[in-house]
Amino acid sequence: MNNPGLPRLDEIQQARARIDHMIHWTPLLTSTAVNKMARCQVYFKCENLQKTGAFKARGAANAVMKLGEEAKENGVATHSSGNHAAALARAAGEAGVPSFIVMPSTAPEVKKKAVRSYGGEIIECEPTLSAREATLEKIVDRTGATFIPPYDHWDVIEGQATCAWEIGQEGIVFDTIMAPVGGGGLLAGTALSTHYLSPRTKVIAGEPQGADDAYRSFKAKKIIPVQNPDTIADGLLTLLGKKNFEVIVQYVQDILTVNDEEIIAAMRIIFERMKLVVEPSAAVPLAALLKNKEKFEGEKVAIILSGGNVDVSHLPFG
Amino acid sequence: MNNPGLPRLDEIQQARARIDHMIHWTPLLTSTAVNKMARCQVYFKCENLQKTGAFKARGAANAVMKLGEEAKENGVATHSSGNHAAALARAAGEAGVPSFIVMPSTAPEVKKKAVRSYGGEIIECEPTLSAREATLEKIVDRTGATFIPPYDHWDVIEGQATCAWEIGQEGIVFDTIMAPVGGGGLLAGTALSTHYLSPRTKVIAGEPQGADDAYRSFKAKKIIPVQNPDTIADGLLTLLGKKNFEVIVQYVQDILTVNDEEIIAAMRIIFERMKLVVEPSAAVPLAALLKNKEKFEGEKVAIILSGGNVDVSHLPFG
Repeated sequence: MNNPGLPRLDEIQQARARIDHMIHWTPLLTSTAVNKMARCQVYFKCENLQKTGAFKARGAANAVMKLGEEAKENGVATHSSGNHAAALARAAGEAGVPSFIVMPSTAPEVKKKAVRSYGGEIIECEPTLSAREATLEKIVDRTGATFIPPYDHWDVIEGQATCAWEIGQEGIVFDTIMAPVGGGGLLAGTALSTHYLSPRTKVIAGEPQGADDAYRSFKAKKIIPVQNPDTIADGLLTLLGKKNFEVIVQYVQDILTVNDEEIIAAMRIIFERMKLVVEPSAAVPLAALLKNKEKFEGEKVAIILSGGNVDVSHLPFG
Repeated sequence: MNNPGLPRLDEIQQARARIDHMIHWTPLLTSTAVNKMARCQVYFKCENLQKTGAFKARGAANAVMKLGEEAKENGVATHSSGNHAAALARAAGEAGVPSFIVMPSTAPEVKKKAVRSYGGEIIECEPTLSAREATLEKIVDRTGATFIPPYDHWDVIEGQATCAWEIGQEGIVFDTIMAPVGGGGLLAGTALSTHYLSPRTKVIAGEPQGADDAYRSFKAKKIIPVQNPDTIADGLLTLLGKKNFEVIVQYVQDILTVNDEEIIAAMRIIFERMKLVVEPSAAVPLAALLKNKEKFEGEKVAIILSGGNVDVSHLPFG
């Protein structure tokens, strides 16, 4: 391993212990109907049932708990329109640490409400990356808060790695483990834990075609940003992080892309057959599996359902 | 205990063992947000994640598995527009037993599809109780199949009792356990297991105001049918069974009623906070709890989420 920053197995185990009181060990659920449909055995790791409704609770908790006492007093800050915002606000709240969350003014009210309910302070800005970064910089200058980025950070990746670490404790030998990829926090963490615990298990990501920078970067072996990404899987609009890419390019076997129609169909299957509420991003790996059944035939496949934060009054199949 | 038909504790335990290979031991899930809202600690027993998407899998499996060899060859029959139909078809299919399901022609296509997918033979009839009974009688005469009613049957009640039996194994002392009541199969089973395993735990049912025959019967201590029941909780439109009433009147502490608006609001909370897909019937106990918070303040309450079979493209809050 080239980079000393890459979380080691013992560090991932320590992270799991560090955040144990702040997260759920989420269940692994199966459905005969889905197995028939997929022609393989699918085990869903239910991070939609995780605290804050997404795996992001893991990385945020780990990053907050690793701060020194002085840093904890000054608080944490981030810019995010999504699950990381709520996860960081909650982790901070649980640890008695102030949190400052820069959110685009266009962020859904339900996401703002979640941040506030956990005790986070919201600072609104224009919905552009440059406005978000500038606003964040001002907040950090004013408060001395520590910036906890949503994915491009080793402590965050280490926290997300605890999800696949749990899967590795279930006593099942998986042929493949699948996760969605946006910024790459979950995927990098999944790839690391799987590499350590079950090196023969393939790690395959699902990515929306409308935001396929990870796919392009993976194939080109260098980061290729996508301009104006557009997909219903709003959790995956973010650009791949550098540290994440470094892990992904080494330890991920493949990235498969799917279009929005395929994502919605898979999301509907998860609602109807698994009886689980998931956000579109969480349905991306199942969509990729169903589109490429021949690749997985007869296998045991673990799929991480990344989150369940979706407006249930405006479902895409409603 | 007056009636020798009432399942004993050892019989419920035997039933749980008998159907072990056919059902899930469903998880018990919690949410800090729901606890805050309810001002008590709520544990959701997720029968929406049960095989066939409802607790009905338990009673149907138990009834089918208790049949003698000759009866198994002739098959089983029932009339049901809902979860019992799918549950019986599946239990029969798993046991290699033919099943004949009388369904009203107006039953949702998704429910018919489920029955067929499990290998059940559907016989359609007019959507009246008398047409259902007459059609069923003809089928039974023709095939020699055993009629397995949806709830008014000791083997079915014994099977449904395995749900609260599982709750009793979790090592948590509950102040209250709640279930919805329609025909009373789940409620009677829940009351029996709770009576045996934790006699100090109160058993409280939730019932829709538009189909409140259990409430009226419970108060009057005799069965009072309701004409033309009407509620969004379509799984609870059925009339209370006689055997079920016999158990309920002895071992249930209270029945609380809620209107459709309250049911829909509770259903939405389960979707948004628990990230679980439930049918309206399953939300009735939470609705009853939230309407009567003062009764449950500070308690540990187990709520059985009875099922998740709902048309996700037509949710009442969509």
